[in-house]
Amino acid sequence: MSDAAAVLEAVEVGLEKKRSVPEKPPERLTARRDAAHATVVRVGDVAIGGGVPVVIAGPCSVESREQLLAAAQGVKAAGATLLRGGAYKPRTSPYDFQGLGLEALLILREVSERTGLPVVSEVMSTEDIEVVSDNVDMLQVGARNMQNFALLRRLGKVRRPVLLKRNPAATVKEWLLAAEYILAGGNDQVVLCERGIRSYDPELRNTFDIGGMVLAKTMTHLPVIADPSHATGRRDLVPAVSRAALAAGADGLIVEVHPHPDRALSDGAQSLNIEDFAAMMQDLPVTVG
Amino acid sequence: MSDAAAVLEAVEVGLEKKRSVPEKPPERLTARRDAAHATVVRVGDVAIGGGVPVVIAGPCSVESREQLLAAAQGVKAAGATLLRGGAYKPRTSPYDFQGLGLEALLILREVSERTGLPVVSEVMSTEDIEVVSDNVDMLQVGARNMQNFALLRRLGKVRRPVLLKRNPAATVKEWLLAAEYILAGGNDQVVLCERGIRSYDPELRNTFDIGGMVLAKTMTHLPVIADPSHATGRRDLVPAVSRAALAAGADGLIVEVHPHPDRALSDGAQSLNIEDFAAMMQDLPVTVG
Amino acid sequence: MSDAAAVLEAVEVGLEKKRSVPEKPPERLTARRDAAHATVVRVGDVAIGGGVPVVIAGPCSVESREQLLAAAQGVKAAGATLLRGGAYKPRTSPYDFQGLGLEALLILREVSERTGLPVVSEVMSTEDIEVVSDNVDMLQVGARNMQNFALLRRLGKVRRPVLLKRNPAATVKEWLLAAEYILAGGNDQVVLCERGIRSYDPELRNTFDIGGMVLAKTMTHLPVIADPSHATGRRDLVPAVSRAALAAGADGLIVEVHPHPDRALSDGAQSLNIEDFAAMMQDLPVTVG
Amino acid sequence: MSDAAAVLEAVEVGLEKKRSVPEKPPERLTARRDAAHATVVRVGDVAIGGGVPVVIAGPCSVESREQLLAAAQGVKAAGATLLRGGAYKPRTSPYDFQGLGLEALLILREVSERTGLPVVSEVMSTEDIEVVSDNVDMLQVGARNMQNFALLRRLGKVRRPVLLKRNPAATVKEWLLAAEYILAGGNDQVVLCERGIRSYDPELRNTFDIGGMVLAKTMTHLPVIADPSHATGRRDLVPAVSRAALAAGADGLIVEVHPHPDRALSDGAQSLNIEDFAAMMQDLPVTVG
Repeated sequence: MSDAAAVLEAVEVGLEKKRSVPEKPPERLTARRDAAHATVVRVGDVAIGGGVPVVIAGPCSVESREQLLAAAQGVKAAGATLLRGGAYKPRTSPYDFQGLGLEALLILREVSERTGLPVVSEVMSTEDIEVVSDNVDMLQVGARNMQNFALLRRLGKVRRPVLLKRNPAATVKEWLLAAEYILAGGNDQVVLCERGIRSYDPELRNTFDIGGMVLAKTMTHLPVIADPSHATGRRDLVPAVSRAALAAGADGLIVEVHPHPDRALSDGAQSLNIEDFAAMMQDLPVTVG
Repeated sequence: MSDAAAVLEAVEVGLEKKRSVPEKPPERLTARRDAAHATVVRVGDVAIGGGVPVVIAGPCSVESREQLLAAAQGVKAAGATLLRGGAYKPRTSPYDFQGLGLEALLILREVSERTGLPVVSEVMSTEDIEVVSDNVDMLQVGARNMQNFALLRRLGKVRRPVLLKRNPAATVKEWLLAAEYILAGGNDQVVLCERGIRSYDPELRNTFDIGGMVLAKTMTHLPVIADPSHATGRRDLVPAVSRAALAAGADGLIVEVHPHPDRALSDGAQSLNIEDFAAMMQDLPVTVG
Repeated sequence: MSDAAAVLEAVEVGLEKKRSVPEKPPERLTARRDAAHATVVRVGDVAIGGGVPVVIAGPCSVESREQLLAAAQGVKAAGATLLRGGAYKPRTSPYDFQGLGLEALLILREVSERTGLPVVSEVMSTEDIEVVSDNVDMLQVGARNMQNFALLRRLGKVRRPVLLKRNPAATVKEWLLAAEYILAGGNDQVVLCERGIRSYDPELRNTFDIGGMVLAKTMTHLPVIADPSHATGRRDLVPAVSRAALAAGADGLIVEVHPHPDRALSDGAQSLNIEDFAAMMQDLPVTVG
Repeated sequence: MSDAAAVLEAVEVGLEKKRSVPEKPPERLTARRDAAHATVVRVGDVAIGGGVPVVIAGPCSVESREQLLAAAQGVKAAGATLLRGGAYKPRTSPYDFQGLGLEALLILREVSERTGLPVVSEVMSTEDIEVVSDNVDMLQVGARNMQNFALLRRLGKVRRPVLLKRNPAATVKEWLLAAEYILAGGNDQVVLCERGIRSYDPELRNTFDIGGMVLAKTMTHLPVIADPSHATGRRDLVPAVSRAALAAGADGLIVEVHPHPDRALSDGAQSLNIEDFAAMMQDLPVTVG
């Protein structure tokens, strides 16, 4: 048999297998069976989805050890139990600040150890999964990557909880199917995050889809949290939208907080300072922890 | 002077006057001066915007005296203080049920007298303003008519409070400018109502814009209420979205309630029955009244 | 029988009649039976929908006799066969120029007589139908009034062709059902106009929905024209979008042209001057007339 | 110096470098200097952007050698000069057909050699870039990956032209900035493709944004083509939208064509059969080649 013929035969065998669609479980893995069906996702010793909402807070980007430590200590004192901070930043323009990368991860680990707060940070590429996993407690998939299926498949094989943000043009069903990729790979530690859909109103960065968030809760057993910072783009609206999300049943919040929002390298306009964050935490309609 | 010349001269005089733009107040009449600036709108003896949120409830359409009376007694017992009911119904198709018109207005008045609940009902046309005003306590401008400027101008001259729904494609600024037409005419008794913007998600009738509602509150002294029924199109989502709106600072709710939603002539899928409405009222994050 | 009892009895009789939904024809009156089914709408001696696309052009607002006459002579020389000009202007703010009203109608009639161009102008309210009908050849329903059902019903009784603009948040089906109100009233001289749907892109005033325009053509026998001026909000994009619309099968265009766009009282940024309009007319992909 | 101290010192050095934003060229690399500034992208011996629009056609997915060969021969006979065919398919659900992968690439290469048509196929992940580049002539970035910045950066280093689809919620500016990532990496052989933005109208899969396509042409020197298949989701609308795009100045089309659309494993509803594609090609408003 010639080489070419051998390749063609191998092709035919591969084709036969791949032409059939992947095996489908009798029910979607993300589907909620009944009102009592709820998955608890554990990040360090924090439980998300266990009935008591959690608050994740911290700066958009890690900018320095001083900045992250000040943010972490501030949000912890105010009642947050998880720390956020971006190391790899997806930016619309290649000429914007792109994040501190590995250095940021090392800072996140150090600050996590000093404060005891588990840490969540974004992973933008399959190639970064390992180094991010080695340094943080929860891996975030950003809104722009919600349907980066190569990334989702790989996260199905990782032993780290995943925070999956909704794409600003995704339906709730598409969002749950993105999570399905991760669960189908074997990782059921997935938290969904509503962060606003595309808005036509120039006054708002996005439209926080409270109805979609509630709908998602009825459709899946996975925890669903809210990101009021990206959803509005304006720090003055963050407290009210946070209260709304919790009153509607969100399993938590992820809030951008910066010691000095006006000096932030990214997302300053939507970041609360520590004082305003602490005031907001005093005024939530439910107990968080 | 010939007739034609006289007409032309009159035209010139009119032109001179009209070519200039209307006089503008130093500040928009709808603009909030500071955080303490809040207009209270009175409907019968109910105050909207006075700090304690109100709940308006009732059927989409008035269908019969029995139906409206049952709805009114049910929602009153559950804590609603205003009754809604459509007499003139804006319907996408000319072949759908169009409302009972004058008969519905008479039923609304009768039921209002029997229950003591003030009544709000939609007015679709300048020609109906008088008859609707004669029979109900508050005039609603529907979402489709938010920029029916002839109607808005006329409502500026009416001694009845107005409930102005946001159009599903309007920015917050456009919504407030629609209210400005009414205030500029001399009527400052205007309540704004967020009822959802156009959604691309087929699972939801609209996207409830909680951020836009909160933004509106920061921009105007007028009360802002929420319509969770139209905003979702699904009765199972109404309680959570109602809680969200009140937690975010809404001055009230307007909720569709029908004694028998499955027999409703319009909007049955988004109407609560009286029992579910009463349960929802028990579970609000703030005190209403 | 007491007066009250008589009223109640009358109510019951009225109820019985109104509770039933309106009679529905076996097929929608706007529905296209087959590819050959096309209604020709006549405006003066111009035929819209007869196979040869028409071009309607003129200023957003009538501002003076000189302005309208210059515009009319310019667009006629360039090949337009119908004149547009606003007399009653729907404006987002009550403090913007509101149109010259009756004076503008008289100017439209005079200029129409001098140039031989039939005229189309917007009617914003049922109360203006008579005076506008007396002075212009075609009545326009603006995008904001697409679901002003009181206005649509009344236009079903008028002996004037109607230009029905699509609302920027309406589906194609909702748009056709708005036309159905006019046809159901007895007036089948309706032309549909796609003028862009709400856009999230701040660079564009609206998103011209070419797919929706083509879809409408497959669903109805009524003519469908395009408004590239409102659809883009930018005069530099008007020629290309005009070519697109005609290449896709539009029955015509309505284009804003002003002798001095930079001095226009409204919509200057999207108005072509006469020279650019004439250049555009030389470069269309089909013959118009 | 201890290990920990050494790490920290290295961190500080890295931080200093990364905290500053990337160097920015005086003008964006994608920006058009003037109306004559146009980049020609070469795929095999086909030029895109050189004034004569091109037509890329073929099936959504490669399903078998017979299917692809029939499609390729059919579209070539009708006038297409490039072949499309998906090997790695981004699918909303993990349980849908995911593409034949490597086998599809081998088939694409074989059919390309037999027909002489250069081939474009999607690359979903940085890890697939090499194998896809080895077998096809142009790499497509799908709409869902438009802001997969890790992928874009890597494509900046590849010696293959790139077809960059617009995300259905991206502004034109965001789309061009995504291309900027590729150009900033050193690869200026980028073709942009408008394929429709998210629609609220259930009758259409997407809204083809003809205005955005024209706007993009005014802003960049890169070629811009149109995908009428995804933009509508309905094969009956594809010919009219194709004509519109070309009349508006598109540098080409990419059209889904399948020998037997009703048996297609993906996107059958929007695929033309060969006969209808050939008919469409006879009726374009400009010469293609």
